[in-house]
Amino acid sequence: VGEPLHLYGYARSMAAYRVRVALRLKGVAFRETFLDLRAGDQFAADFLALNPEGAVPTLIAEDGATLSQSLAILEYLEERHPEPPLLPAGPAARARVRSLANLIASDTHPLLVPRVSAYLRDEAGLDERGVVAWSRHWVSRGIATAETRLARDSETGAFCHGDTPTLADICLASLGLLSQAAGLQLRDAPTVSRILANCEAHEAFRIGEG
Amino acid sequence: VGEPLHLYGYARSMAAYRVRVALRLKGVAFRETFLDLRAGDQFAADFLALNPEGAVPTLIAEDGATLSQSLAILEYLEERHPEPPLLPAGPAARARVRSLANLIASDTHPLLVPRVSAYLRDEAGLDERGVVAWSRHWVSRGIATAETRLARDSETGAFCHGDTPTLADICLASLGLLSQAAGLQLRDAPTVSRILANCEAHEAFRIGEG
Repeated sequence: VGEPLHLYGYARSMAAYRVRVALRLKGVAFRETFLDLRAGDQFAADFLALNPEGAVPTLIAEDGATLSQSLAILEYLEERHPEPPLLPAGPAARARVRSLANLIASDTHPLLVPRVSAYLRDEAGLDERGVVAWSRHWVSRGIATAETRLARDSETGAFCHGDTPTLADICLASLGLLSQAAGLQLRDAPTVSRILANCEAHEAFRIGEG
Repeated sequence: VGEPLHLYGYARSMAAYRVRVALRLKGVAFRETFLDLRAGDQFAADFLALNPEGAVPTLIAEDGATLSQSLAILEYLEERHPEPPLLPAGPAARARVRSLANLIASDTHPLLVPRVSAYLRDEAGLDERGVVAWSRHWVSRGIATAETRLARDSETGAFCHGDTPTLADICLASLGLLSQAAGLQLRDAPTVSRILANCEAHEAFRIGEG
């Protein structure tokens, strides 16, 4: 029995939330150190030595390897701890789940991180209202696109792909939290709303540490 | 022998470029339909019926499945056509390659796509100079972060991970093209420059169709 995995996270990081949910779903023991990104903890020399990206999540794995980027960490956990699976069987089904995950975690979320808001405010001269409009625009677009795909596809079940959570649900739940934070209603996204309710009812998707 | 794969791309799409390079590296036959994203081909009803995201790359697979999101498509190709591998063996090594790929394709490139430039111009009120500064900022950040990681890690070889191309090189090459387009010099990124030169010398990484 080795050390538990060590996650560096941040309470308000959606990307760290994704890793936390996956660890819980797989029942993998971990401990978490919370950085304060507002205070700049991620740019401290000792953290940059660990992860030069200066970003969370950062995960110290069983063998001491330092992992970064939430999607790469989720794939790692899937390979090292295959049960319960967070990807379906079959390349096309796996591609569907990964593409929903990427729609959110690659196409949408990177527009909504603190470093981007800071640039818009400090370099591009947007006022607070402009930054809020930016966030609402991209969250709305992500939700609407996910809704169209999920409502259309016969593979959609209680969760994004069938009736058990996958990487797509983990990413969707993180977008749901951003959407709540942005004060958006999901009236036009009944399928997304239904799946988010199923995530909320699942213990592994709870907000908060541990 | 089935139909060749059918790729919907766009000459200036970095995400479509990634899929094209992977198909060539794996020697998978494909034909490509080029959309004109400036003319709005991606929002035509028949294309949206295929991919509601209105985005390229979109790949019609062997079994007729419609695949979207470049990273999901790359993983699909790796699973369906494992040789030559574009991911190394071992979960930690695979996580390293995926995290470099995500650093570029998830953290950086989504900030640089036409829909984002259009928003900055039309909704956020940035002038052309502001949009150019935005692009240069994020391309530079992506290159600098990749350089720090690649220069530091002993796994870096002729390519990002050892001496054969992986998903990380495919993503790095796409960022290299964006960097060229933005008129950036890579003086401060000798490791990235060296790897990009090795990509450029590789037939599969050529620019253009087929």
